[in-house]
Amino acid sequence: MEQPPTEMPPSSPIERYLARLYDRYAGLDEGQVATYIPELAKADPRWFGISIATPDGHVYEVGDARQPFTIQSISKPFAYGLALEDRGRPRVLEKIGVEPTGEAFNSISLAPGTGCPLNPMINAGAIATTSLVRGDTAEQKVQRMLDVFSTYAGRPLQIDRAVYLSERETGHRNRAIGHMLRNFDILTEDPTTALDAYFQQCSIEVTCRDLAVMAATLANEGVNPVTGERAIERELVDPVMSVMMSCGMYDFAGEWLYWVGLPAKSGVAGGVLAVLPGQLGIAVFSPRLDAHGNSVRGIRVCKDLSTELNLHCLRVPRAARAVMHGTFDLVKLRSKRVRRERARRLLQELGGRVKIYELQGDLMFGATELAVRKIASAAALTDAAVVDLKRVGRIDATSADLLLRLTESWESQGKRLVFSSVQRHASFDRALAELAAAAPAGNAGAPDPRRTFVDLDSALESCENALLARHLPGDAGALAVTLAEHDLFRGLGPGAVAALQKRLAPARFRRGDVIVHAGEPADEIYLLTEGEVSVVIELAGGQAKRIATLSPGMFFGELAVVRGTARSADVRADSAVTCYALPKSELEALERSDPATRAVLLGNLLRHVAEMVALLTAEVTALLEG
Amino acid sequence: MEQPPTEMPPSSPIERYLARLYDRYAGLDEGQVATYIPELAKADPRWFGISIATPDGHVYEVGDARQPFTIQSISKPFAYGLALEDRGRPRVLEKIGVEPTGEAFNSISLAPGTGCPLNPMINAGAIATTSLVRGDTAEQKVQRMLDVFSTYAGRPLQIDRAVYLSERETGHRNRAIGHMLRNFDILTEDPTTALDAYFQQCSIEVTCRDLAVMAATLANEGVNPVTGERAIERELVDPVMSVMMSCGMYDFAGEWLYWVGLPAKSGVAGGVLAVLPGQLGIAVFSPRLDAHGNSVRGIRVCKDLSTELNLHCLRVPRAARAVMHGTFDLVKLRSKRVRRERARRLLQELGGRVKIYELQGDLMFGATELAVRKIASAAALTDAAVVDLKRVGRIDATSADLLLRLTESWESQGKRLVFSSVQRHASFDRALAELAAAAPAGNAGAPDPRRTFVDLDSALESCENALLARHLPGDAGALAVTLAEHDLFRGLGPGAVAALQKRLAPARFRRGDVIVHAGEPADEIYLLTEGEVSVVIELAGGQAKRIATLSPGMFFGELAVVRGTARSADVRADSAVTCYALPKSELEALERSDPATRAVLLGNLLRHVAEMVALLTAEVTALLEG
Repeated sequence: MEQPPTEMPPSSPIERYLARLYDRYAGLDEGQVATYIPELAKADPRWFGISIATPDGHVYEVGDARQPFTIQSISKPFAYGLALEDRGRPRVLEKIGVEPTGEAFNSISLAPGTGCPLNPMINAGAIATTSLVRGDTAEQKVQRMLDVFSTYAGRPLQIDRAVYLSERETGHRNRAIGHMLRNFDILTEDPTTALDAYFQQCSIEVTCRDLAVMAATLANEGVNPVTGERAIERELVDPVMSVMMSCGMYDFAGEWLYWVGLPAKSGVAGGVLAVLPGQLGIAVFSPRLDAHGNSVRGIRVCKDLSTELNLHCLRVPRAARAVMHGTFDLVKLRSKRVRRERARRLLQELGGRVKIYELQGDLMFGATELAVRKIASAAALTDAAVVDLKRVGRIDATSADLLLRLTESWESQGKRLVFSSVQRHASFDRALAELAAAAPAGNAGAPDPRRTFVDLDSALESCENALLARHLPGDAGALAVTLAEHDLFRGLGPGAVAALQKRLAPARFRRGDVIVHAGEPADEIYLLTEGEVSVVIELAGGQAKRIATLSPGMFFGELAVVRGTARSADVRADSAVTCYALPKSELEALERSDPATRAVLLGNLLRHVAEMVALLTAEVTALLEG
Repeated sequence: MEQPPTEMPPSSPIERYLARLYDRYAGLDEGQVATYIPELAKADPRWFGISIATPDGHVYEVGDARQPFTIQSISKPFAYGLALEDRGRPRVLEKIGVEPTGEAFNSISLAPGTGCPLNPMINAGAIATTSLVRGDTAEQKVQRMLDVFSTYAGRPLQIDRAVYLSERETGHRNRAIGHMLRNFDILTEDPTTALDAYFQQCSIEVTCRDLAVMAATLANEGVNPVTGERAIERELVDPVMSVMMSCGMYDFAGEWLYWVGLPAKSGVAGGVLAVLPGQLGIAVFSPRLDAHGNSVRGIRVCKDLSTELNLHCLRVPRAARAVMHGTFDLVKLRSKRVRRERARRLLQELGGRVKIYELQGDLMFGATELAVRKIASAAALTDAAVVDLKRVGRIDATSADLLLRLTESWESQGKRLVFSSVQRHASFDRALAELAAAAPAGNAGAPDPRRTFVDLDSALESCENALLARHLPGDAGALAVTLAEHDLFRGLGPGAVAALQKRLAPARFRRGDVIVHAGEPADEIYLLTEGEVSVVIELAGGQAKRIATLSPGMFFGELAVVRGTARSADVRADSAVTCYALPKSELEALERSDPATRAVLLGNLLRHVAEMVALLTAEVTALLEG
């Protein structure tokens, strides 16, 4: 397959760093190309490539990063993952241990008594692993490995026949191991099948770039970050990386963990692959090997990368600190439903008892514990809380459980805990739905039974409604009004209202009708007397976002009229709607015909718009600080 | 020392989980209390405690979490950290290896030839470690360990004399090891000193809660999360955790890494300590031991904790995904300097070429690479960018370097990259200052040489100024105006202006004067004719935050007058200021005396306030979506 040229900008500091690293070791000629398989001896000792792949699929590379070579022992962890998937962990652990041996790669380290290979990274364990990969014949096993390894690499991989034949011909030590495994019944059939599959598995051809993507697939919890395809079940990634960590570098494992600190695997063709979980896949290719059988330049580059880029897997960002994106309450942050003054005052007064927590990042125990503790510690001063998940990447089972327990606990105290932006978290959404509905006595009034909302705005509206229902029970925000009762006409005498009313005709709309279209010229202010409307803009992604929802007695379209601009948003009828259009020209004509009325209208408009500024200023301040 | 009662709310789901875990194993009576030291045999086999400490210093605990016992081998990693600090890594590594032995804790595993203990977690390595801790006498060494261990635990620790004497009397095997080490010159003096210090070190009395805090200190990069005191240099935390990871659980290390996956250490008094780097410290105490010498319930609890809470250290949150808090441009987000219409239109038109990136969390390679790549990829469409660090916890050396390289690269292309909210990142701030000042030819006009700003607002203002200086070179926003030229009087005839002017007196203020005080009644609108003022509110933390900066021709104080509320903010003179106060009563009097003038003034007020609504709405939308 033709690979596209890399799209890395030449100004990338990371690419320049890799180029410097390459230069640093390009002249290093310590070590020897492997010769125990004749075909491997043909490698050019000068070959040298470095690749780094990120969990969003970007690949940095330098040098011979596209030179094919055989995967050799780097196949072992991937085959182990396959065996775990095909046979299950208990069955595999029965046959193959997970303890490091402190011995060389080709040692025949079998546990005394059982004959179990001590781990799957030594040849004995790897051959046993291959025997556990699904398939009755060597060909079936090999095809399965090729399929899955190709998913890891993101391109179809093939076998280097010459190396395979050379391995098969000269692999006496491995044959000895195979028969020893058969002797202990670790292999239950003729070892030839497993051995033949194993020789082919080691002869799969990869590039340094492939290995980096394979490593990044492990770093990305089993999903190839370039293609988005899953190569291994998420639950099996930890065990694979664990054996790489403890046994991946043979008798160099302790030093490796100390100096590099990354789950890794090397192969005698010169490849080294390392994983920084959650962050990076790293691969180096250089065929000269040290006495441990590891690539000399590979080890040096990995050490420098780990030290200089601070990649040791035990040194991690303190994820929990970044979990809170923002913390607000209903005083600071409101839904886009516009409230009448009484309701607004009440929300100002009592809104501090409804808290809003925007979370961010992957929710795992550390982060969630902090968030849950923070939310729980506010419980005494809180009637309800909204947890927004819009910026949350993933919720693990523990975190889901902690949030469910918190919900239960709040509901048992007669409090409400709801979650917004839950669409991307389907299983958590389901679990919340399945949570036995608590029936707190104190809340009998008008509880909204919903625990989840599609966005923060709708969750806020629900919490506001609950607060208002309890404390302003008689509030009739949605009842129709007459023009005489309308906000815009406040302060006008009956005569002035009658005169205006004579010149205005009611317009009626059905639910869903668009009353005002964004982009059109703005010639009228609309007085809403019946039903509700929403002001809606379209976001960059095409998604609709409401700016305001208005009730009878309110008006809309005034901003564009005052500013002399085109309509900046659509206004849609949320129900059957009656409204009156007051033309700009009419307002201007009043300047001569009835300046006093005009002054009242301007004063009403001004007060209304000033109110909006106050609310928006509070919101901006909250969002910038929260 | 009397310890305060825990403040954990009883409703915490984590405490309830720990209680369930406790119940699950409270009845387990497998294993035997250690008897090889007579004093240890006195332990109550029923003792059982679990503690978890978070990196912000919260401690969960259940059972006998405050029962004192001796630290025993759990002292080894902490002493190793001390030896590294006192002698430096090379000197310590000369004497003690870092390879796991796969053997029992009391094995005499010395490397063939050199006689070096294979690692510092076996007794031989630990005794060699103690000999490297600073101090000429056993007492000095012990005092040093007590001091530092107490910093880890956050309370003064002491030695259990009875256990110490018992250890000293019966420690023949350790004495044999000491002499063997002396024989190989690993110990360079009489082994009695190291041995006596070692026996005391093992007899330091701790509780399960102490161990959890000690573990959390490692998780928190060496800083005790409860007291905030540093117990070990940050650079030495990785090596300590590395040897815990590879060698901490003796011949159980591979299984431990596979099933638990946390750097850990156990002791024969029944303690087990485990670290989830960046996230948690865990400790279990239960004196019954298995054949490996590890606490039976300790191992079970750690396995369950790791599995059920998903704590395996190779399974981590994908930190990089949470690095972008928000992405904006100057169209969406503006400084609080209020611009005249021409400038506003220009910013609307060209503001897309100035990008704003708010970063969040600890910046390490994975996160920073993503951020740098994202910023770099926008370079072609960008003239300048602001990177805000307000929500960044820490910038590691690699990340600082990547950001510096990006800055250089942008400046060499004649672009600007600036950083805001840098106060908490002093060394990065210094490094930016030391970066050779690039002198891009294309920017000769009016470049602001600053690379750092105290907050995002001031960085935005600088970028706006640069854009306006280039594209609106003649803009005289700060020049004094006459009342006739004032925005509020726009559209009035000369007669009307003269009539108003007669009734208004100029007020002059010096830089720093407070013209309007928050909380006072609002009776006047101020017309600014000379100098600049800022509208400032006080945030919850007492910090001042500007809401707006105004230039001559603009007015302030209108919102409170229109809304009939008290002043909501201070207005301060940023320079020598002249302004005219227009009393509310004057505006009302015009209703009868000159309704046409009043209508013009209301219209001007209305347009102005409507403009503010439009800007604020855009800002809110950007902040909610960004």
